[in-house]
Amino acid sequence: MTRTELINLIRERRSFLCVGLDTDLNKMPRHLASQPDGVFQFNKAIIDATIDYTIAYKPNLAFYESMGIEGLRQLKFTVSYLHSLNKKAFLIADAKRGDIGNTSQQYAKAFLSPDGDFNFDALTIAPYMGEDSVVPFTAYDGKWVILLALTSNKGAFDFQLMEDRASGRRLFERVLETSKQWGNPDNMMYVVGATKAEMLEDVRKIVPDSFLLVPGVGAQGGSLEEVARHGMTKDCGLIVNSSRGIIYASNGEDFAQRAGEEAHKLQQQMDHLLTTLCPNL
Amino acid sequence: MTRTELINLIRERRSFLCVGLDTDLNKMPRHLASQPDGVFQFNKAIIDATIDYTIAYKPNLAFYESMGIEGLRQLKFTVSYLHSLNKKAFLIADAKRGDIGNTSQQYAKAFLSPDGDFNFDALTIAPYMGEDSVVPFTAYDGKWVILLALTSNKGAFDFQLMEDRASGRRLFERVLETSKQWGNPDNMMYVVGATKAEMLEDVRKIVPDSFLLVPGVGAQGGSLEEVARHGMTKDCGLIVNSSRGIIYASNGEDFAQRAGEEAHKLQQQMDHLLTTLCPNL
Repeated sequence: MTRTELINLIRERRSFLCVGLDTDLNKMPRHLASQPDGVFQFNKAIIDATIDYTIAYKPNLAFYESMGIEGLRQLKFTVSYLHSLNKKAFLIADAKRGDIGNTSQQYAKAFLSPDGDFNFDALTIAPYMGEDSVVPFTAYDGKWVILLALTSNKGAFDFQLMEDRASGRRLFERVLETSKQWGNPDNMMYVVGATKAEMLEDVRKIVPDSFLLVPGVGAQGGSLEEVARHGMTKDCGLIVNSSRGIIYASNGEDFAQRAGEEAHKLQQQMDHLLTTLCPNL
Repeated sequence: MTRTELINLIRERRSFLCVGLDTDLNKMPRHLASQPDGVFQFNKAIIDATIDYTIAYKPNLAFYESMGIEGLRQLKFTVSYLHSLNKKAFLIADAKRGDIGNTSQQYAKAFLSPDGDFNFDALTIAPYMGEDSVVPFTAYDGKWVILLALTSNKGAFDFQLMEDRASGRRLFERVLETSKQWGNPDNMMYVVGATKAEMLEDVRKIVPDSFLLVPGVGAQGGSLEEVARHGMTKDCGLIVNSSRGIIYASNGEDFAQRAGEEAHKLQQQMDHLLTTLCPNL
């Protein structure tokens, strides 16, 4: 999906919501957890209930890998189902990959190749190993790297805020600056946690036009309004993720209906924020 | 596998060699690549030919994921085969994972759980997201985190050598220091590339007793002797990986025999280095 197509999707749905598919057998309704394809059935019901309010879906690979090979089959069915729909969405593999060049090439093939089992639009990447670990993910047309910059968790403070003696820049700022030479706003986005919304202004000084994938709204405590106020651009420039707050809004038979309601609530807030902060979209 | 068992393995086989199973359909012998379980057959032949000279195997997840779900089935067969052997080896998933706490728990389950499809002894982890992204991997008894410190690739220079304004320490040194509070030499090792052997002395100042997983000998240009001279401890403290130099020593029908010969050559050098530098092992 190109940048223009992504912006069109935001314009049409009046939303910049991503639904995180952190699908967990222990948290989904029991009547589904006991079925052989329960993970897929759960995801399908969530997708059907939320797609009118959502522009992106983000399966978290860990949750599927923890169910072994069967979990990855359920993920494959989920991605195929999303590709089969008339209503499009931006598909993010939240996989936090990254390795030396020839290995990153293999990860890129695994997740981004149109001929593979998955064919995602984008993949989250950890920057620790530098340029040759990131660049191979930019090799597929219309596909995206989403590089970790400032994450939403407590551990973000361990290294990401370390100040560079030479430049005075913090590590996440060095990642933003340096990686601008590896990609551009048409093929590279950044993860910036909603729990650090006030730092979004520092991020925007370095990457004024790039899309940001923002986790941490909802269960992790971040505020949607703060994120929009500090991070929105004229093209919106934000994809805000909510996982648990939507997909586990209920663990009863009404789980999909409740997920749809939660997604709709967020979409209405986003519509309002787009009207206020992004009037020319 | 406990630290004591690992050291015993090194003592018995007079080796600290890890064979990297970066198995690639385009590089393996054609007569195997065309078979439905060719990846497993290739790995099995390599394992049979090298296990007398080797203490560890390290499948690189990217190479299996790039073959889709079928690739992961071949990996599962490979790991099951290794568990079935009387001759034990330390099994490393080279997966470079790491995410917020509840997600890292899922990755830990995927790779380290004795009940899962894989049941590895250890997993490589990227440190960018800090403490809560790493600690969940220490939850399994006798299992190991292998944290990236100083990697073997060119991109290592992008961020890993950045100097902290407050302490003067470089990022990889901060990772070593900080992570000592998250684990100990019984459940945490570090990746330090052989291409930066002279920095092993700086590493040893911070983690004198920890095992190091050292990639980059062979195809990437690192020297085994340099690594041993700068990094060996009284318990050896090193696991040196070779991937392409062993498994693709030949792509003909003699591939396994040639792999065995290359592993044997490295084992003989390691035997000599252990005798010289680690006389009381």
